[in-house]
Amino acid sequence: MTKAKPTILVVNDDGITAPGIKALIYAMNDIGRVVVVAPDSPQSGMGHAITIGKPLRFDKEEIYEGIEMYKCSGTPVDCVKLAVNLVFKGKKPDLCVSGINHGLNNSINVLYSGTMSAAVEGAIEGIPSIGFSLDDYTLQADFKPCIKYVKDIALQVLEHGLPPATLLNVNFPIAEKLMGIKICRQANAKWAEEFDERIDPHKRPYYWLTGVFQLNDQGEDTDVWALANGYVSVVPVQFDMTAHHAIPVLNTWKFND
Amino acid sequence: MTKAKPTILVVNDDGITAPGIKALIYAMNDIGRVVVVAPDSPQSGMGHAITIGKPLRFDKEEIYEGIEMYKCSGTPVDCVKLAVNLVFKGKKPDLCVSGINHGLNNSINVLYSGTMSAAVEGAIEGIPSIGFSLDDYTLQADFKPCIKYVKDIALQVLEHGLPPATLLNVNFPIAEKLMGIKICRQANAKWAEEFDERIDPHKRPYYWLTGVFQLNDQGEDTDVWALANGYVSVVPVQFDMTAHHAIPVLNTWKFND
Repeated sequence: MTKAKPTILVVNDDGITAPGIKALIYAMNDIGRVVVVAPDSPQSGMGHAITIGKPLRFDKEEIYEGIEMYKCSGTPVDCVKLAVNLVFKGKKPDLCVSGINHGLNNSINVLYSGTMSAAVEGAIEGIPSIGFSLDDYTLQADFKPCIKYVKDIALQVLEHGLPPATLLNVNFPIAEKLMGIKICRQANAKWAEEFDERIDPHKRPYYWLTGVFQLNDQGEDTDVWALANGYVSVVPVQFDMTAHHAIPVLNTWKFND
Repeated sequence: MTKAKPTILVVNDDGITAPGIKALIYAMNDIGRVVVVAPDSPQSGMGHAITIGKPLRFDKEEIYEGIEMYKCSGTPVDCVKLAVNLVFKGKKPDLCVSGINHGLNNSINVLYSGTMSAAVEGAIEGIPSIGFSLDDYTLQADFKPCIKYVKDIALQVLEHGLPPATLLNVNFPIAEKLMGIKICRQANAKWAEEFDERIDPHKRPYYWLTGVFQLNDQGEDTDVWALANGYVSVVPVQFDMTAHHAIPVLNTWKFND
């Protein structure tokens, strides 16, 4: 008796025509039945945004021959919700993979990332989910060195499952030779923003968000350390945001209620 | 010797003219020096989105007399970044409060909420931060019963500070009589979506996101339980999304690297 081919939802935030999702589609096509639901335009930095004030467009379009593909006018999280409800109709896929993102989603970037939020939404839906990202923002990014790892990690998740209410955040460095996989924690870091002020033709100011990544963590068990040392970083992620350790502290406060 | 008045950043996601932020502005004005930076239009459900593909508008506008106010064309998280960089210029405020949101941000809603993401961003910036939300979506929502608690919680945070890298998620039920404050954890729940399909005048389909809140948690230590029983729920929130408990599990996997 052979196992049925797994069904794999592929999503991203760079948009349905990005080279990163194409690489992921073909990697997953070697493993199972692929269904793609992705934004019709770039949605980087959308975090866990959903579209509630306006309606969504959702259309089937076979961009790559033989692949079941749908594009959506909304956010990465909308894509997962639409996939679950309009495509799979309650019969969940076996795996949800997001990416491969053009640019890292390590450390604090997990919060801003549409790629990771799509994977988080997959996990909320009870689907084993993984986000993949490569340290190269360009459209010329070479995803080939990632593919062996992407397939291995996807197969391991299909085999073992994941602990309840967790997902994986996988990041790839640019390196001559990848050093292997390292299980990590999210490094403590933030973006130190600067806003680039410019003046429009009507003499009014406008601002571009720019920033410098500020690492406040020298731990050798972090994703930042792993990537800097040529490893593929794998961080297990949860969506229970409760700071459980802070509950006893707050219970010592005397409220005037 | 009297203490200097604290400086308080007020932000929201319903937009700078929402009744909820007006209530919060005047509550905070009794405590300290208020600076408002809020979106110029509603940004509900924006999660931790930031604006990276287009520039931002950012303008001073004194909507309420004597209050320092700025409106921004971006997301709630953009507002906090703009406040820190263009208004406070590195000298951080003593407190960041977000809301009062029109509608609950308990349980899993913490991930989708622009109100909460603004507070999370405040905490990432190292500012003691609190998100406030009321269980009433309407513009007619009555925030008066919340004010006593809003002030008390803000004063407690100013007095005690918060544990490192945590913030508070405060939700108010609609109740004849509020039962007091309860420190809680985020309830395990999700939205079961349905998409309302309609046909536009050009015969093309479009979809509205709708959903039913699906509680999978009978715990009496959750925010959902507290709110259902008339309490003000206070959940300490963290932005380290690492599932630390899953690291040893993943370390038992044999990768082909």
